[in-house]
Amino acid sequence: MISKNTLKFIKSLQQKKIRKNERAFFVEGSKNVTELLKSDFEVTHLLFTDKYSLEQAALVDDFKGEKALVQAKVLESTGAFKSNDSALAVAKMKPNHPFSLDNDLAIALDDVRDPGNLGTIIRIADWYGIKKLILSEQTADFYNPKVLQASMGSFTRVDFFYTSLEKYLSQVNIPVYGAFLEGGNIYQAYLETPGIILMGNESKGISPNLEKWVNQKLTIPRLGNAESLNVAIATAIICDNFRRL
Amino acid sequence: MISKNTLKFIKSLQQKKIRKNERAFFVEGSKNVTELLKSDFEVTHLLFTDKYSLEQAALVDDFKGEKALVQAKVLESTGAFKSNDSALAVAKMKPNHPFSLDNDLAIALDDVRDPGNLGTIIRIADWYGIKKLILSEQTADFYNPKVLQASMGSFTRVDFFYTSLEKYLSQVNIPVYGAFLEGGNIYQAYLETPGIILMGNESKGISPNLEKWVNQKLTIPRLGNAESLNVAIATAIICDNFRRL
Repeated sequence: MISKNTLKFIKSLQQKKIRKNERAFFVEGSKNVTELLKSDFEVTHLLFTDKYSLEQAALVDDFKGEKALVQAKVLESTGAFKSNDSALAVAKMKPNHPFSLDNDLAIALDDVRDPGNLGTIIRIADWYGIKKLILSEQTADFYNPKVLQASMGSFTRVDFFYTSLEKYLSQVNIPVYGAFLEGGNIYQAYLETPGIILMGNESKGISPNLEKWVNQKLTIPRLGNAESLNVAIATAIICDNFRRL
Repeated sequence: MISKNTLKFIKSLQQKKIRKNERAFFVEGSKNVTELLKSDFEVTHLLFTDKYSLEQAALVDDFKGEKALVQAKVLESTGAFKSNDSALAVAKMKPNHPFSLDNDLAIALDDVRDPGNLGTIIRIADWYGIKKLILSEQTADFYNPKVLQASMGSFTRVDFFYTSLEKYLSQVNIPVYGAFLEGGNIYQAYLETPGIILMGNESKGISPNLEKWVNQKLTIPRLGNAESLNVAIATAIICDNFRRL
């Protein structure tokens, strides 16, 4: 049995301010909850339906936090999904600690504000085996339910922290590649790993104050007439060009 | 002055069934309306705010159909956007006629059901100069407001028709490339133009009944652990691999 207060607490985590104060967040749906339970996140609560406990009996059994078998309607009135007939779990945020880069690619996001875009970029990073994300302070909140949903479980497999990108990029000593509409042809560019792929805001692109830290400006050649590409699409194409080498 | 009946008619075009019966659709927002007015679509109605008529005075002046200066709230109560302070226009659908392929790439979509994905794929096609889309009957409706919005105006620059892909693919005589999780490494594949890039449904991939018409199965190599890539992301990467040659 789960108390009304606990449900109220979980529901309140839909708000960024409360997530931040409580240092907690929730994830919804079978795929994301399963990935969360298998990850190194500290999970505190698990609400699950009959359906989920049949599918993931061992995970539910092994879970040591507060857990409760509930109806789908409880998940739906507590979480952000319209429909959810499987599970919802609450976990503690990881501390926002800067990490040192490994000898590989990293992605830096300069004010990517759309949660769907951030989540999709997390999934792309995970596909291409890129484990490090550096996020500007105005980038969408990693723990926003829409971000976690769009990441399709990949949020458990990337490291990230929020910081001032201007300060951060001024201190790194590996090449920074920035996506610009007027950069050099990416197909002809010398793409080095380790490196940082810097992607800009959906409408404004990369901020002028970061431009000076970009060692190489890259452009995906346009053959048709679309004005631009969505930032997640452009991130995927740039990652692919690095990884195909 | 625009009549209440006309506003009611426009609003009803949010429903696919009514769009189909009326052979009409609407687009919203400055970018999309401007692209529509510059395109070869037959535009019948234009609702615009002061703001839009300042920005696009010539386009508004030249428009010969039914037009009206309105408040933003009229656009918002008529269209599908939560906020719209610029314009909304109604146009006639183009006939659903099969076309012959030009000597270039085409994209075929097998039941891509999410309107955002279809719109994003249209934008990607337009970026890479791919003008032909062949859509299975269960693919999202091209004229859905969410599709048009995600296409960012690119919907005016692609040709498309809906058909049975099984019948269609059985008759083409250029290579068909299909995206599969267990295909050949795209980086090492011989990618020929003209050709058809076939992309499958968001959860099921390419239908078994289409598989036999695929000449080459392609996979984007995975270096990390994400289970899959979103279909629009995968389309972009495949287009990029064709166009970079």
